[in-house]
Amino acid sequence: MHENDLLATLATLFASSDPGVLVGSGPDDCAHLMADGRQLAMTADAFVEGSHFLADADPRDVAAKAVAASLSDLAASACRARWLLVTLCLRKGVRAGWAESFAHGLADAAARYGVGVVGGDVVSGPATCVSVTAVGEPLPGGPVLRSGGKAGDMLVVTGTLGGSLLGRHLRPEPRLAEIAALMAYAAERDDGFPHAAMDLSDGLSLDLARLCRESGVGAVVEAEAVPIADAARRRSEASGKPPLGHALSDGEDFELLLALPPALWAGFSAWLAEAERGLTPFTRIGVVRAGSGVALVQDGKERPLAAEGYEHQW
Amino acid sequence: MHENDLLATLATLFASSDPGVLVGSGPDDCAHLMADGRQLAMTADAFVEGSHFLADADPRDVAAKAVAASLSDLAASACRARWLLVTLCLRKGVRAGWAESFAHGLADAAARYGVGVVGGDVVSGPATCVSVTAVGEPLPGGPVLRSGGKAGDMLVVTGTLGGSLLGRHLRPEPRLAEIAALMAYAAERDDGFPHAAMDLSDGLSLDLARLCRESGVGAVVEAEAVPIADAARRRSEASGKPPLGHALSDGEDFELLLALPPALWAGFSAWLAEAERGLTPFTRIGVVRAGSGVALVQDGKERPLAAEGYEHQW
Repeated sequence: MHENDLLATLATLFASSDPGVLVGSGPDDCAHLMADGRQLAMTADAFVEGSHFLADADPRDVAAKAVAASLSDLAASACRARWLLVTLCLRKGVRAGWAESFAHGLADAAARYGVGVVGGDVVSGPATCVSVTAVGEPLPGGPVLRSGGKAGDMLVVTGTLGGSLLGRHLRPEPRLAEIAALMAYAAERDDGFPHAAMDLSDGLSLDLARLCRESGVGAVVEAEAVPIADAARRRSEASGKPPLGHALSDGEDFELLLALPPALWAGFSAWLAEAERGLTPFTRIGVVRAGSGVALVQDGKERPLAAEGYEHQW
Repeated sequence: MHENDLLATLATLFASSDPGVLVGSGPDDCAHLMADGRQLAMTADAFVEGSHFLADADPRDVAAKAVAASLSDLAASACRARWLLVTLCLRKGVRAGWAESFAHGLADAAARYGVGVVGGDVVSGPATCVSVTAVGEPLPGGPVLRSGGKAGDMLVVTGTLGGSLLGRHLRPEPRLAEIAALMAYAAERDDGFPHAAMDLSDGLSLDLARLCRESGVGAVVEAEAVPIADAARRRSEASGKPPLGHALSDGEDFELLLALPPALWAGFSAWLAEAERGLTPFTRIGVVRAGSGVALVQDGKERPLAAEGYEHQW
């Protein structure tokens, strides 16, 4: 069965009439909940041996990736991270010390991002599976959803894209500091807040198509502007596919994709250029426009950009 | 490795200095967190094919059990349930429709207990594994922890104990209405609130020993007072072990174990007896006393009660 069919079923089943559920289990990276005037963001992700990590993976890498990917969903919603709950199903017969190494990796990752691990469960079963619930709070001006993109917005990404399988997928970096800097900058000026945001987990072409669909807009990506990761160039040498193809369709970048009011981007990019801010670069890769669909402009010619990326199949 | 060793490691690693973490990842059923003056309770539990349910189990039963067991942790902390986040790792090749049936079971259970399913994830892997994070809020007078038991308290359980493997383990009933009634009763009177509470997941003798250890007290259970489930008597016929043995050591009862000030118990039990309250029965099974360890009084003789129940091993 195709992921999208099941997700559509789930979205219908779990549509909420609870006034405390501001954004529920739909397409967004997090649920946004209201408890007594206080807004919370929550997201849950599962990681399983054989799909998300190899059976012989270093348990510290497994923990680091699970935490980083979960926190990336909070960054993608313009939230700061507070707490984690983690369940671990340990494969029966897993080598002695696996769980302890995982726990140390979890503690390291939690300390690195300033979050507390406040609950969890450990069970054993036929395969190792990790589930992480991350709880956060909107930054001032947040949360930012996928659905707010407007024609004329600047499309901006953090970092470089593609080739994560060559190593970065093991240790992705949630862009918590970057979104915090952007939201703090926006809160101090009068140029608006980001209109839409998400993280790039399944490849830019696929994830951008999702953002456009949720926002009811189209987008144009400028091929020359896409920041291509060195790893995407190295993968290109082996695959024969152009480096840009890897940057557009490889998954697990865990970079941010943002739709920003032009004045906010103009001011923020100038602020970034003024001094060393200790942040990963932000790059404008195109614009949001009216209509639907995603196009690529390359060598002066525009063509539709096929949504190629990691679509989950069962 | 023994569960307790790993849990001790985890408790040390994840001890929190965050003032927002009132009760963290320790022995209690939930974490209790403070966000801007608002208290929240969260708990995460994992359920895996082959350990918590059979590969041919009805997916609706799997969903019902996962939800009920998770909500039982909130009831056990004197909290009301608000939201669920659920991750599902589907075994590759699982029969068509499994995920949809699971989703319908999840929606049914959520509706039954008035909670919203606000987030989740679906992945595929070598075995089916479900992880549930339940989020709740303390009832007035709550939360109640495992650690507050005092000498002189009445030991009280809900429902009947033992034999859940004969069927009830598939559809446990979280005692949300019962704890809500008790807390509401206590809030209206001046006889105090429950001192300690937990749910019975691994068998009374083992779980009571845990409550006593956390509270720094001992306890005496009166054999004649223990409410033995019919299923425990039926299991006894097959096992040759006395029905009381099943009531004391079978797991997955998901009933509440409470330590109540005597005046609260006297008043509440009288209130229960006055009219049909639509609640499962509450039964006094013994008392909390100074010291340590759990004893059983049977036929006028007291002997130590061995902590026999379901201890998880890897």
